[in-house]
Amino acid sequence: MTEATHKRQLVIIGGAEDKEGDCVILREFVRRAGGTKANIVIMTAATELPREVGENYIRVFERLGAEHVRIIDTETREDARSSTALEAISKATGIFFTGGDQARITSILKDTEIDAAIHQRYAEGAVIAGTSAGAAVMPDKMIVEGDSQSTPKMEIVEMGPGLGFLPGVVIDQHFLQRGRLGRLITALVREPAVLGFGIDENTAIAVTDDQIEIIGEGSVTIVDESDSTYNNASEILRDEPLAICGAKLHILPHGYKFNLKTRQAILTNGVVASEAMNQSVAV
Amino acid sequence: MTEATHKRQLVIIGGAEDKEGDCVILREFVRRAGGTKANIVIMTAATELPREVGENYIRVFERLGAEHVRIIDTETREDARSSTALEAISKATGIFFTGGDQARITSILKDTEIDAAIHQRYAEGAVIAGTSAGAAVMPDKMIVEGDSQSTPKMEIVEMGPGLGFLPGVVIDQHFLQRGRLGRLITALVREPAVLGFGIDENTAIAVTDDQIEIIGEGSVTIVDESDSTYNNASEILRDEPLAICGAKLHILPHGYKFNLKTRQAILTNGVVASEAMNQSVAV
Repeated sequence: MTEATHKRQLVIIGGAEDKEGDCVILREFVRRAGGTKANIVIMTAATELPREVGENYIRVFERLGAEHVRIIDTETREDARSSTALEAISKATGIFFTGGDQARITSILKDTEIDAAIHQRYAEGAVIAGTSAGAAVMPDKMIVEGDSQSTPKMEIVEMGPGLGFLPGVVIDQHFLQRGRLGRLITALVREPAVLGFGIDENTAIAVTDDQIEIIGEGSVTIVDESDSTYNNASEILRDEPLAICGAKLHILPHGYKFNLKTRQAILTNGVVASEAMNQSVAV
Repeated sequence: MTEATHKRQLVIIGGAEDKEGDCVILREFVRRAGGTKANIVIMTAATELPREVGENYIRVFERLGAEHVRIIDTETREDARSSTALEAISKATGIFFTGGDQARITSILKDTEIDAAIHQRYAEGAVIAGTSAGAAVMPDKMIVEGDSQSTPKMEIVEMGPGLGFLPGVVIDQHFLQRGRLGRLITALVREPAVLGFGIDENTAIAVTDDQIEIIGEGSVTIVDESDSTYNNASEILRDEPLAICGAKLHILPHGYKFNLKTRQAILTNGVVASEAMNQSVAV
């Protein structure tokens, strides 16, 4: 008898998601976590205001009908071995990382028992979500901090280890709202990673295995460096501007999909973008 | 006897160019205009502070050694027929448009005698330069105004006619400093144009016929839509987010070149970027 394989599910949110109106994104998270049967754990490690921030999410998730919702607040690495917390995580169908400072999440949780327990639940099909700082920690290497509205240069971005739910990519949040193209490009070239996702506020990528769907109000800017013909990363000093030639750029709003393996955008009608043009020519 | 053909020369500046230090960009403008023999006209139509802004440039250009420097201030379309102004333009080797509001430049100058005279000098080899609003007016269709730090949507950008020195492209300025990727993409799709140039502050593109060279402190973000496989411009309403798939992205700093015809980036060593990878693989 073979073990059942579970879908890997993530909801990675660019920050400032709607908590009062339609709650399109948080609704999708709760639905994926089991709907009214959802058992949700809110991880507040990123914030210094865990009660305030956590209770705000409790209200939304309960309003949407999730059956069990609780906060796990970890202030120290010691907290990250708490047996109550581990017990709660082992039953969770949805685990949600709040915003705050991404370096707090990794310095408190990375390689702890809680970290391992969350990864186990991820492998077992629980949906892992994060907003803002909670989004930043999703790849294996994350943007710890960096300058917005800046020309790309090595010095504008500090990278560090992330929690590794979505390896091999770079994620930035509050993307167009804070003018972070330079920062995303720098992270992408420094990593080096092939795909960079710049997620707008109140916008998310919902990941199911290799398929990504964009949901929410804004758009997701995807920079694909795989066909890029040149960058000067190996030649420049920290304060010199980066050059990158021939990267591919997609900007996708709600309902569009993107395949992580083929690196192709998929239109709302299911047609692969690279084939859309041929189709319209053929008609 | 055939008429000599002159190079078409432009210096298009992303705003906030250095006027106190090395003056890399303004220096290049004066050099192209004839160096110490330059005869420079400063067009202050964009600004409501023509004296203040104009005299600032007089100081720089004189300090750099330009022989003749004068301001042409046009407040009305009537001013734009002034015979003194036309006389000055007919002798100018460099014509510089200051910053301010680009709609002032086109509403005062577009299709006037001064406009025609400047175009004639351009065809005769004089270098035309502009910074900020003065950069915006260079294409045939310009961004009149638009939202920065925004998801691309039709409603975020107002387009209008430019002065048409560099047709078929879209130009935005203060680019990464003000987070204008969404605005540039929207302009590009609305135009529709094939190439969008997002020019950083204290950065310029120096155009010689079809060749562009990047000069200055920051970088120029070039979006090439020619190979783009899809956009939803024909399907969406004004307040709905744009989608674009498979555009090409280059970010180029000082010393890099770009060819407007082949749409290829050229490295500082003269190698075409698309061939750089093959070369390094071959070694």
